[in-house]
Amino acid sequence: MCSISTCRVLGQSISSDSIHTKDKNMLDEYRSRASFSVERMRNIFEDEPSQAYRTKIWSILNSNPIFHQPQYPLSIDEYRQLTYRRYHELSKLNLLTDEELFENPRYKIILEQCLTMYDSSCHAKYSLHTTVFGETIRKLGTKRHDYLLDLDKNGHIFGCFALTELSHGSNTKDMRTTAIYDPSTQEFILNTPDIEAMKFWVGNLGYHATHAIVYAQLFTNNICHGLHLFVVPIRDPVTYKTFDGVEAGDIGAKCGWNGLDNGFVMFRNYRIPRENLLNRHGDILSDGSYKTPFKASKSLGALSSGRVGISSLAIGLLIKSITIAVRYSCVRKQFGPSPGTEYPVIEYQTQNWRLVPIVASLYIYRNLALSVFDNLIHFYMLAMSSNEDDRDLLAYMGREIHALSCTAKAICTWNTQKASQECREACGGHGYLYASGFGIIRDDNDPSCTFEGDNNVLLQQGSNYILSNYEDLYKNNVSINSPFHSAGFLENMKTILQNNQCSITSECHLKDLLNAFDWLLCYIVDKSARKLEQLTLTKASSSFDSKNNAQVYHLRTLSIIYIQHTAITRFAQFLETNNDMDDKCKVVLEKLLTVYTLKLFEEHIGLLFEGNYIKNGQVNQWMQTRLIDLCDELRNEVLTLVDVFAPPDHILNSVLGNNDGQVYEAINKMIHSNKQTFVTPSWLKRDLIERSKL
Amino acid sequence: MCSISTCRVLGQSISSDSIHTKDKNMLDEYRSRASFSVERMRNIFEDEPSQAYRTKIWSILNSNPIFHQPQYPLSIDEYRQLTYRRYHELSKLNLLTDEELFENPRYKIILEQCLTMYDSSCHAKYSLHTTVFGETIRKLGTKRHDYLLDLDKNGHIFGCFALTELSHGSNTKDMRTTAIYDPSTQEFILNTPDIEAMKFWVGNLGYHATHAIVYAQLFTNNICHGLHLFVVPIRDPVTYKTFDGVEAGDIGAKCGWNGLDNGFVMFRNYRIPRENLLNRHGDILSDGSYKTPFKASKSLGALSSGRVGISSLAIGLLIKSITIAVRYSCVRKQFGPSPGTEYPVIEYQTQNWRLVPIVASLYIYRNLALSVFDNLIHFYMLAMSSNEDDRDLLAYMGREIHALSCTAKAICTWNTQKASQECREACGGHGYLYASGFGIIRDDNDPSCTFEGDNNVLLQQGSNYILSNYEDLYKNNVSINSPFHSAGFLENMKTILQNNQCSITSECHLKDLLNAFDWLLCYIVDKSARKLEQLTLTKASSSFDSKNNAQVYHLRTLSIIYIQHTAITRFAQFLETNNDMDDKCKVVLEKLLTVYTLKLFEEHIGLLFEGNYIKNGQVNQWMQTRLIDLCDELRNEVLTLVDVFAPPDHILNSVLGNNDGQVYEAINKMIHSNKQTFVTPSWLKRDLIERSKL
Repeated sequence: MCSISTCRVLGQSISSDSIHTKDKNMLDEYRSRASFSVERMRNIFEDEPSQAYRTKIWSILNSNPIFHQPQYPLSIDEYRQLTYRRYHELSKLNLLTDEELFENPRYKIILEQCLTMYDSSCHAKYSLHTTVFGETIRKLGTKRHDYLLDLDKNGHIFGCFALTELSHGSNTKDMRTTAIYDPSTQEFILNTPDIEAMKFWVGNLGYHATHAIVYAQLFTNNICHGLHLFVVPIRDPVTYKTFDGVEAGDIGAKCGWNGLDNGFVMFRNYRIPRENLLNRHGDILSDGSYKTPFKASKSLGALSSGRVGISSLAIGLLIKSITIAVRYSCVRKQFGPSPGTEYPVIEYQTQNWRLVPIVASLYIYRNLALSVFDNLIHFYMLAMSSNEDDRDLLAYMGREIHALSCTAKAICTWNTQKASQECREACGGHGYLYASGFGIIRDDNDPSCTFEGDNNVLLQQGSNYILSNYEDLYKNNVSINSPFHSAGFLENMKTILQNNQCSITSECHLKDLLNAFDWLLCYIVDKSARKLEQLTLTKASSSFDSKNNAQVYHLRTLSIIYIQHTAITRFAQFLETNNDMDDKCKVVLEKLLTVYTLKLFEEHIGLLFEGNYIKNGQVNQWMQTRLIDLCDELRNEVLTLVDVFAPPDHILNSVLGNNDGQVYEAINKMIHSNKQTFVTPSWLKRDLIERSKL
Repeated sequence: MCSISTCRVLGQSISSDSIHTKDKNMLDEYRSRASFSVERMRNIFEDEPSQAYRTKIWSILNSNPIFHQPQYPLSIDEYRQLTYRRYHELSKLNLLTDEELFENPRYKIILEQCLTMYDSSCHAKYSLHTTVFGETIRKLGTKRHDYLLDLDKNGHIFGCFALTELSHGSNTKDMRTTAIYDPSTQEFILNTPDIEAMKFWVGNLGYHATHAIVYAQLFTNNICHGLHLFVVPIRDPVTYKTFDGVEAGDIGAKCGWNGLDNGFVMFRNYRIPRENLLNRHGDILSDGSYKTPFKASKSLGALSSGRVGISSLAIGLLIKSITIAVRYSCVRKQFGPSPGTEYPVIEYQTQNWRLVPIVASLYIYRNLALSVFDNLIHFYMLAMSSNEDDRDLLAYMGREIHALSCTAKAICTWNTQKASQECREACGGHGYLYASGFGIIRDDNDPSCTFEGDNNVLLQQGSNYILSNYEDLYKNNVSINSPFHSAGFLENMKTILQNNQCSITSECHLKDLLNAFDWLLCYIVDKSARKLEQLTLTKASSSFDSKNNAQVYHLRTLSIIYIQHTAITRFAQFLETNNDMDDKCKVVLEKLLTVYTLKLFEEHIGLLFEGNYIKNGQVNQWMQTRLIDLCDELRNEVLTLVDVFAPPDHILNSVLGNNDGQVYEAINKMIHSNKQTFVTPSWLKRDLIERSKL
């Protein structure tokens, strides 16, 4: 039997005394507790024109009903139809003019991030078409292909990009589609040798595309000249029938991105004109002789833009997850110290510790992704100036961009994947509601972990880059050329390793933590180099085998620590060099950096002990205590910290995350506005009628 | 330009020389390499009648077309209709008779696991009805409720179970639905004070249920007697209209389990007869006086069966994930040491290291889940015998079962969640195909992390149990009563902590690792007890606050280590006590245990150094090297290790995981058998017609 104090008495429980009223302003309450101004913080990370551009995109997506999000999942067919119509609306809007792009290249990443946060399928359909098809023709085609761009621009054709084959994704070199030149008709004959070589996963090819850029092995005069790109007509743009010799269709449902029609295509003795070869880097004369204008040494950097983009898409989805989870955790109350009193769950140590480091990761990786984008733009700008003197610098930049973009893509997409799951669980059962948004966020980020390079494979580019620089420096006496400073640490490596005095105290000063991270990076580089040497010497294994056998706990770890080091170093520099930063903001940002650095050390604590850097076991406890304390200090800041980047409600699109914190009203509204809520389904009715006859 | 050796020459690439042929028998190849017999291994873990029962369930699900799985996702309405029809078929089949259950209680868990592996929605609809509604009435009702069981059995009504409210999930005590007794009419008046108190997430209530068992605060004569259960008519079983005073409907789409209609219900002055109170533990006389036959001290153990079941469901989904990932990794080839040679990806160190510990986790946690189920059965058996002498023992068992079931549920569901994501990514892009099955597996396991108790909240039951035993032993001089041995270590704790000599060598013998795990558990118990004491002394905080402020890195870690310790100890005992175990199997199983123990140490390495157990940094490297070596030794065993538990193809339901390893054929068949593959969607056609008019 409960006493009246623990249970509500009769009159009370039926009256309008509701927790509801008390909850009304929990978000206002937490907002009022923040020590800094949300606007000032936002201005630190984004200039006003960028904010205005972002706001413009949001408001366009709010103004037209076609962009409004349904609260109930669509069937695949409905979703594709809607995505198709949205694409047409978007392409009419001309969201990013050349002038805008020239004025601020970051607009491109803002646009992509906004569209992904809105709807990944819509973004993919739009960007695969506007960017990939067109840009490939512009970059790798010549004048003779300009008509394609015109047709495409006017909507007479619709293009897509076909690289991946059914059994070859990561290993692009071994693609097996063939294009054999027939001088008698001046045509290429395309063939798909078997089902494993069918082009697969081609975005927009399922139903929509009429033309594909196809990667195929070019053969002429019985010699293979390797992979080349061909513009291949797939479907008649008037009837949408596939041409004879082409089998193309939709690959079916996916775990997400179902608004996009991914397709496959197979060729059987399908002939295309000689001119359909994109011939910027190699051409076939009518007699079948192969000629190339220059040695086709495509810089690595030029291929990085896709991956750099993906990092920012992952940040966009992370913003959504953590915003929803933090807001709901400020509103949701469970348990309490005494009957009738319940705490908002953000007040609980565990909940706080689950969410605060994710907020920190958002700040640190957002900065990383943008900084790598800026590096890429720097590289592009230099490449455009085409000064012969810059050739070496361009090559160095290209290599570094490649390493940075591969590893940053891996770390950003993984972080979002793990964080989204944590955020979903941190919202309890309601996180499993479709209308919470988490299912979509998780499913939309998921493919990023394996496309444009599987994350584990991409990571290898980081260790390759660092170890080849290491070898240059310590074996070939070539000094480090790391224009973007991510490999500069190698110069001081010996000193850092010799001076392995851990200076971390119970206060866990940021400076000491950053020093420890420097040491950690040097240690894993040294350990990896020694491991490779040992494998090569003792087992006389090939470089291929040695690298494979030194992945786990060596090269893979090295790559991860390399990009984490870059992330925290760049954030530290951002704080240091930003002289006019608001002091209150700075204090909070330094705490975030400390939180995240401490969190990363949890992953690597074994190495710090193994390398004898930490000699005192207590350091582990100090770091844990400091992390908990900082999370606690940030308890009243996290809501405002997510508000800094939070999109408007119509983009966040979650009953748990609305800006007004009216969670239960939003759920109630959601169920009451759904036409399916109160129906008796036809199949159930039929069954009742059947039974009533018995 | 490629040389002919790296590219295929003309003739070759067009001929039928396909990797395809070479891949044909990769699974046979790996199967032939296993050192042990799959049947013998299977017999170690499941007796023949159980295997036969499992096979019977599989074959029933294969025989009737209604149970066949569509390869394309259904709309929510289609899925619910199908689930409804499947439920009716299943309930006709009488899949588990009372005789069978009596003969072998494990049949229950086998049936539930089989159904979950087949389809979680179907399993939930079936088991929520057959188990939860009926069993609650049988256990908590009295004779006067028998008619409900008859009506239900004959399909005249359909019941569900309504506990959770919109704003109260975890904190059940604070549920706010009221049932006020009105002696003038001998009725209870049900009310939902506000939207936050609506019953929510009720499985089968969305459309289907006519009756609900509702938890409400019982008031009589202005006094609240706490939560009681009431049978409440919701819908007219003939018309399916909800009754006046009841608002009930469907909560909408979820991230998974969409075949199940989860519903909500609100009451407004809704009257039900006095007799609808389930009155086994407390009743209202007609005059409104409350009487209870005995003190309602429901044993904790009795509430554990749901969680014990969930652990096994998570194991079922883990079996699916790892089977698909291992099989596809044996078939899929990428890269190689020389042109034209490609390795199956399982050969790569990273891939191997990602998957082998998951296989190990399957063996260790499957054994844990079943052993906790056996403990529960043991407890039930004793409870049924109702011998007064057993009362204390029953109470001890109940407490231990509660701790074991809560922590095992948390660890098993989290392991499946993380492992499924890893397996999905380990399959590369194709893991994102709907037909890979991973989306469904991940989404179906996901709610288990938060329902029947949020995992982080459940974990607290582990530390509560251990620390109260600790206090009994070391403060109150009461000896440990741990009938299922999970707390027995406390007796030797002081000795184990004093003797902190790490005996791990570079060979990483299992015995030394298990000793280290014993130490680790004792260390975290001691550390946690000291932390709580310190918090209570220095901050004079309440027990509620102290526990909250010692969660992260103390109580939470303690609970995790407690159940991990139980899991590996029980597996070690299983190996030790199983005398007639096939030697070859035993060697492999010991390796799996070593792998998993090493994997767990990665999580806790900081504690081993912090507590000065490991004094030599090299131990970290030894453990890493041993783990890699063991993964490598198990490379040729893992396929057969997953075959031991793998369900038939129609249950696995993945184009990547079929038993014959014909992955690319299965994908090709999937796209060609889908009617949507080659259509031109109507909306696209309409658009073409519109454009042709322009």
